[in-house]
Amino acid sequence: MSGYKLTYFPVTALGEPIRWMMSYLDIKFEDYRFEREQWPSIKPTTPFGQVPVLEIDGKSVWQSVAISRYFGKKADLAGKDEWESLMIDVIVDTFTDFRLAVGKWFYESDEATKKKLEKPLLETTVPFYLEKFDSTIKENGGFLANGKLSWGDIYFVATSGYINHMLGFNMSDKYENIKALCEKVAAIPKIKEWIDKRPAGI
Amino acid sequence: MSGYKLTYFPVTALGEPIRWMMSYLDIKFEDYRFEREQWPSIKPTTPFGQVPVLEIDGKSVWQSVAISRYFGKKADLAGKDEWESLMIDVIVDTFTDFRLAVGKWFYESDEATKKKLEKPLLETTVPFYLEKFDSTIKENGGFLANGKLSWGDIYFVATSGYINHMLGFNMSDKYENIKALCEKVAAIPKIKEWIDKRPAGI
Repeated sequence: MSGYKLTYFPVTALGEPIRWMMSYLDIKFEDYRFEREQWPSIKPTTPFGQVPVLEIDGKSVWQSVAISRYFGKKADLAGKDEWESLMIDVIVDTFTDFRLAVGKWFYESDEATKKKLEKPLLETTVPFYLEKFDSTIKENGGFLANGKLSWGDIYFVATSGYINHMLGFNMSDKYENIKALCEKVAAIPKIKEWIDKRPAGI
Repeated sequence: MSGYKLTYFPVTALGEPIRWMMSYLDIKFEDYRFEREQWPSIKPTTPFGQVPVLEIDGKSVWQSVAISRYFGKKADLAGKDEWESLMIDVIVDTFTDFRLAVGKWFYESDEATKKKLEKPLLETTVPFYLEKFDSTIKENGGFLANGKLSWGDIYFVATSGYINHMLGFNMSDKYENIKALCEKVAAIPKIKEWIDKRPAGI
């Protein structure tokens, strides 16, 4: 099969940065969304039991950060040299640490354990990361790294709706630099076009 | 300050792939190891509250995967094109997923929760990942990607001792391709030289 096919749950989350990068690059793709109840039958067909999976000309790749970086290079949004690329990679992996900390609490099925995680997460971890991201954006002229747009900004903003959903509040609310970055990236014409036409929902 | 200074706990874990990459590149570095009781005073001095931190000519960077990729490019171990780089990035991020799954159980302080995590981890998750890594190495001619050595292999093997420590057994034991990769990477002269002189311990 030639072309691009993204397989993911019918949500934004980790599929969305890949959708945004392909939209930015004007790449046409099949946006295949399966329902939760299909997951047990789809899981064994994926390379490593996880989605999103992107088929590129019949070859399947996975890992949202790796795929976004790949498209970032094609879009000339991966830094002008190894140092700039490092700056992007560092902040994106730190954003993943943050997402995982939030997810550890959000997805905890045991109510007592979840309750125990809640206070340190919401009172310490979340403000710590958001303040750091906010000041990082301020120090980098409105972007996460290198004073210019990178695939890292697109990854961050594309995933922010999912983080907001887990947190139950908008992480832009109290952080003006995060807010400005989110607005700026969402206003990029090709990305805005995607946001306007994508299926509703988180 | 010019030169390289790595700040980390007195263990291998996530500091070790950076030490291996610098050893491979013949980069001299200060291997600053602090004790657990120093961590509360060191933590606030780090850029994002985490270690390892590597100072490169006075600039501090963090995130072991991002730093290893940076050195991988310098060592010509990051793939010949964007596709090869993607293959390396995908498998390294998947290895991180595996490490985090093991760590979630290993670091759980509540004994009842830990007990509950143990069976699915050791009977399902761990064999699933190890079989996949083993077959991936087999399919890639003895390496994790692209049929040749990459920084991903060095990252994987440098971190494997830490994973083995958490698991309580050697992940090479039942997987011959993982075992062969570990032996091959550890025998690279510059890396062997580091292993022979590094401080004892996990």
